[in-house]
Amino acid sequence: MSMRRYLPILDWGRRYDRATLSNDLVAAAIVTIMLIPQSLAYALLAGLPPEAGLYASIVPILLYAVFGTSRTLAVGPVAVVSLMTAAALGHVAEQGTMGYAAAALTLAALSGAILVAMGLMRLGFLANFLSHPVIAGFITASAILIALGQLGHLMGIGGGGDTLIELAETVWHGLPDTNPITLSIGVAAVSFLFWARRGLGPLLVKVGLGPRLAETLTKAGPVAAVAATTLAVWALDLSSRGVAIVGDVPQSLPPLTLPDVDPDLVSQLLLPALLISVIGFVESISVAQTLGAKRRERVDPDQELIGLGAANIGAGFTGGLPVTGGFSRSVVNFDAGARTPAAGAFTALGLAIAALALTPLIHFLPKATLAATIIVAVLGLVDLGVLYRSWAYSKADFAAVAATMLLTLTFGVEFGVSGGVALSILLYLFKTSRPHVAEVGRVPGTEHFRNIHRHAVQTDPRVVTLRIDESLYFANARFLEDLILARVARDKAVRHVILQCAAVNEVDLSALESLEAINGRLAEMDVKLHLSEVKGPVMDRLKRSALLADLTGRVYLSQHDAINDIIPETPSQARACAPT
Amino acid sequence: MSMRRYLPILDWGRRYDRATLSNDLVAAAIVTIMLIPQSLAYALLAGLPPEAGLYASIVPILLYAVFGTSRTLAVGPVAVVSLMTAAALGHVAEQGTMGYAAAALTLAALSGAILVAMGLMRLGFLANFLSHPVIAGFITASAILIALGQLGHLMGIGGGGDTLIELAETVWHGLPDTNPITLSIGVAAVSFLFWARRGLGPLLVKVGLGPRLAETLTKAGPVAAVAATTLAVWALDLSSRGVAIVGDVPQSLPPLTLPDVDPDLVSQLLLPALLISVIGFVESISVAQTLGAKRRERVDPDQELIGLGAANIGAGFTGGLPVTGGFSRSVVNFDAGARTPAAGAFTALGLAIAALALTPLIHFLPKATLAATIIVAVLGLVDLGVLYRSWAYSKADFAAVAATMLLTLTFGVEFGVSGGVALSILLYLFKTSRPHVAEVGRVPGTEHFRNIHRHAVQTDPRVVTLRIDESLYFANARFLEDLILARVARDKAVRHVILQCAAVNEVDLSALESLEAINGRLAEMDVKLHLSEVKGPVMDRLKRSALLADLTGRVYLSQHDAINDIIPETPSQARACAPT
Repeated sequence: MSMRRYLPILDWGRRYDRATLSNDLVAAAIVTIMLIPQSLAYALLAGLPPEAGLYASIVPILLYAVFGTSRTLAVGPVAVVSLMTAAALGHVAEQGTMGYAAAALTLAALSGAILVAMGLMRLGFLANFLSHPVIAGFITASAILIALGQLGHLMGIGGGGDTLIELAETVWHGLPDTNPITLSIGVAAVSFLFWARRGLGPLLVKVGLGPRLAETLTKAGPVAAVAATTLAVWALDLSSRGVAIVGDVPQSLPPLTLPDVDPDLVSQLLLPALLISVIGFVESISVAQTLGAKRRERVDPDQELIGLGAANIGAGFTGGLPVTGGFSRSVVNFDAGARTPAAGAFTALGLAIAALALTPLIHFLPKATLAATIIVAVLGLVDLGVLYRSWAYSKADFAAVAATMLLTLTFGVEFGVSGGVALSILLYLFKTSRPHVAEVGRVPGTEHFRNIHRHAVQTDPRVVTLRIDESLYFANARFLEDLILARVARDKAVRHVILQCAAVNEVDLSALESLEAINGRLAEMDVKLHLSEVKGPVMDRLKRSALLADLTGRVYLSQHDAINDIIPETPSQARACAPT
Repeated sequence: MSMRRYLPILDWGRRYDRATLSNDLVAAAIVTIMLIPQSLAYALLAGLPPEAGLYASIVPILLYAVFGTSRTLAVGPVAVVSLMTAAALGHVAEQGTMGYAAAALTLAALSGAILVAMGLMRLGFLANFLSHPVIAGFITASAILIALGQLGHLMGIGGGGDTLIELAETVWHGLPDTNPITLSIGVAAVSFLFWARRGLGPLLVKVGLGPRLAETLTKAGPVAAVAATTLAVWALDLSSRGVAIVGDVPQSLPPLTLPDVDPDLVSQLLLPALLISVIGFVESISVAQTLGAKRRERVDPDQELIGLGAANIGAGFTGGLPVTGGFSRSVVNFDAGARTPAAGAFTALGLAIAALALTPLIHFLPKATLAATIIVAVLGLVDLGVLYRSWAYSKADFAAVAATMLLTLTFGVEFGVSGGVALSILLYLFKTSRPHVAEVGRVPGTEHFRNIHRHAVQTDPRVVTLRIDESLYFANARFLEDLILARVARDKAVRHVILQCAAVNEVDLSALESLEAINGRLAEMDVKLHLSEVKGPVMDRLKRSALLADLTGRVYLSQHDAINDIIPETPSQARACAPT
C-alpha cells in the first residue's frame, strides 16, 4: 500500500497493454520532435551548453515516470525556471565557465532535495501562498524579460542582464554591432514560427493532408525552422560571416555528474533553489491538475513534489539543469493521446537517440533560431489582461499583480517573486486587520438582524449590536477595542453591547485579551457586554478562558434570544412600530 | 482644528489652573526622585555614560508634553529599549568609544523619524502585528537577558553578551575574578530594594508616618540605596579596592548634539531603529491606554506616534538615547496625582537641576548599585505564567510565546522580536489555509442547518452542503478545490453541491478563480454548484466577475431556500423521516 503510494508506476504499470502502448508511442514521437529544439533553447536561456537541455530531458523524465502521479505531464527545462536558473547562477559564477555548469547541477539537486523533503513532510500546501495574481504577474513579467533577453541573440550581439533596464541597455548599446545576417535569420524564424502556429495547419489540410496529420506536423514547425536555418548556415558558410552557431555538441548519453556540495555554494544557492522549487511546482501542479480533471485522473500534490524532486535530483546527477512540468509540451502530449507516463519514458528514449546520433547535425544551428523559438514560446505566456481583470475585481488583487510585475521587471525574478508573495500576505493581513463591522437592528416582524445603514430596522437606544465580519486575531484585536469604545463613548444612553459572532471563526489569545479589556472598560462605564451566535469551536475555546466568568453580560445562542432577554418589552414595541 | 490635533498642548494648556498645578508639582517631585537612579542605570544598560540617561529624560519629556496625547505617560530610557539599543550599537561600534555614543544619537533620531513618519501616515495599526503572545514572550525573555547581564556588574566583572549563552559564559568565566566588596554592595542593594518594595511602607506607617507619605517615601528606595552605597564607597575609599564607580559626570545641561548621518551607519541602524520604534510604541501605547481608560481620557495612537517620535528626535539632538513611555514611572506619576503633561515638564526641570547640580555627588556611586536597581526593576517584567495560560487556551498561541522566548534568549533581542512576528503571521496563515469546513444537514422541523457529525440532521444523497467557516483567499483556495473534488469523487450519487457562505467575509481573485475551476470541474462530472447566504459585500464583488454567469447552479439567499428549490420533495420526506 505504502509502496504504491510512493511508486505510482506500480499502479498503472500492472495494467499496461498493447493499445496503451501504441497510444503512448505516437504521443512520444510527437513530443520528442517538439522537445529537441526546446531543450537546446532553454539550456541556452539558462546560460548552459545546449546538450545540458537534452540531458535534462532524459533521466528526469524517466524518474518522473516512476514517481509522478500525472499520466500526461511532460517534464524538462521550461522557460521561466531556466530564466530563474540563469539569475541564480549569475550570482555564483561566470557564464561559460566550468563553475557555472557545476553550479547548475548543484542547483538542480538542491531544488530536487527541497521538493522531495516538502513532499515527504506533506508541505504541498505551501505553494498556496503564491496567490494567482502573484503567479500571473510573475509569469508575464518573466516572459517579457525572456523575450527581451533573446533579442540580443536575434541581433547577434549576445544577451545579458537580469532586469528590464539592464536588458534594454544591452540591446541599445549593441545596436551598432548588430549582425544583419543573424538578424535576418532570426526575424525569418520568428515570422515563420508565428505563421506556422496558425497558418501551417490549414495550409497542409488544403494540400490534401488529413486534419490530424496536419496538426501533428504543425508541432514540427520549430524542427523545420532548425533544419532550414542550419542548412542555410552550412551551405552559405554564414558562420564565417559572424553568425553565432551552436558549435560542437558531444555525441553522448547523459554523463554521470556529481553536484558540488561546497557549503558556501550550497548556502548561496539555497534561497534561489527554494524559489525555483516552489515556482516550478506551482506551474507543474496546475498543468497536471488541469489535464487530470479532463480525464478524471487524480493528481496527488504531495506525491507530485516527490516526482518532481526525483526528476531534479536526476538532472543534478546527469549533467542537466532544474526542470519542471511544462505547459505546452504536456498539452501536446495529452492531445497526442498519451495514456501513461510510459509515453514520457519513450520520449526520453527518443531524446537519448537524438543526443547520441543527431548532435553532429546541429553544429551549424544558428543561435538566433533557438532565440526565435524561445521568443515565440514565451510571448504566449504574456497576459497583460490580468491587470484589467484584477482591477475590475478588486484593487488589492490588482496591487499584487502590478507590484509583482514591476518588481520582477525592475529588480529581476528572485526579488519579484519573493516581493510578490510578501506583498500579497501583507495586503491580506491589512484587510483582515480592519474588519467589516456592521451595527445591526431587527427587521420588523422577523428574527433577522441587518445593517442599520442598509435596511429599515428596529433598534433600542440602550442596546448596540455589532456584527463582526471577520475572525478575531492579533492584527485586528486592538481595532475592535478602539471601535467599540469609541461607539459607546459618544452615546451616553447605551447600557448593553452585543457582539454578534456568527462570522467569527477564530478568537486567538490576543483577541481574547482584547475582549477581556473591552469587558473591563465597558464595566467601568456601566455598560454590559454580551455575545451572541458564538460558533461551536470558538465557544469550546472560550470555555477554557476566564472571559466567560468575567463577562458582565451573557452569551446567547441567537441574536433574537439576546434582544428578547435584554429588553423584554421590545416585542410589543416592535408591534407598535411595525405599521409606521 | 488641525493645529489642535497635532498639538494637544493647546487643548489642556488653555484650561490649566492652580489646583492642577499643585497636583502636577507633587507628582513631578516624586517621579524626579525615582527617575534619577533609573536614568543613570538604563544609560549604563545601553552601554552609554550615565549622564546620557539624564539628558534623555529632559528634552524628550518636554517634547512629549507638547505633542503627546496621554496626560500621565512618563517618557525616558526604559529597560527593554535600552537593551535593544545596546544590541543595535554593538553591531556598529565598540562600547565606550566616541563612535558608540554618536551612533546612539543617530539611532534615537532615526527611531524618532520613523515614529513621526508612521504617525503622519497614520500607520499606528502596524503595531497590531505584534501579537500579545509575541510581546509577552519577548518582554519576559528580554528581562531575563537584562537581569543576567547585570549580574556581571553585581560581581564586579563587567557585563557582555547578547544571548543567554554568551551572558552565562561571561558570568561563568568571570567567577574567579569576582570582587567580593562589589558583590557585597550589590547583594545588599538588591536585598534592600526587594524588601523596600513590600516592607518599607508598612514599617514607616508603624513608626508614625501617614500611609500616603509612607507610600511616597517607598518610591525613594532606589535613591536611598544610591545615597547609602555612594557614601560607603567614599567614606571607606572602596574604589581603590576595585569597586567600579560611575566616576566623573559632567555638570551640564543637555548639550546640543548632531546625529551622524553617514549613509552606511544609517542603513546599518535602520532595521534596529524600526524594531525599537515598534517595540517602544507598543509598550508605551498600552501603558497610555490603560491609564487613560481609568480616567476616561482619550489616547490617540497616531498622535502618540508623533509625540514619541518628537521625544526621540529630541533625544538624538541633546546627547540622549532612544526613549519611550515607561510602565512603572507612568503608574507612579498617575498614582501621585499628575493631571496634565505639565507634570512631565516639571520632572524635566527637576532632572535638569540634578544634571547641573547633583552630578558631582554621584562620582563615587558604585555601578553595582545601578545594576541592583535594574535587576529589581526588570524581574517584575518576567511573566512565565503566560506559557501556562497560552498553553491552556491554544497551542498556536503557546507556540508563538515559546518560540519568541527561545529565539530571544538564544539569538538576542533583534532576532527574537522579528522571528516572533514572522512566526505568528505564519501560524495565522497556516490556520486560515486549512479552514474548517462542515458538511451540514437540516435539523428536522426547522430552517436550521447543522454539522452532520454533531447533530441528527436530514440530508439527501443527491445534495452535499458544505459550510465554509473562513474567508476564501489565496492561501486556502486550492484547499477548497481539493476538498470539494475529493468529496464529490467518492460519492457517485451527488448531483448538487451547495456552498453555504455565511462566514465567508471575503473572496479574493485567487479564490474566485478556484470557484470557477470548481464550477467547471463539477460540470464535467455533471454536478451543479450552488451558493447560499453570500454576504452583501462579497456578492457585490462577485457580480463584477464572470462566475455568476458561468455558475451551473444558482445563488440563494438562504440555505433553506436552496434546499427547497433544489429538491422540492424534501419537505414531505422530512416529515416522513422526523418520527424515526
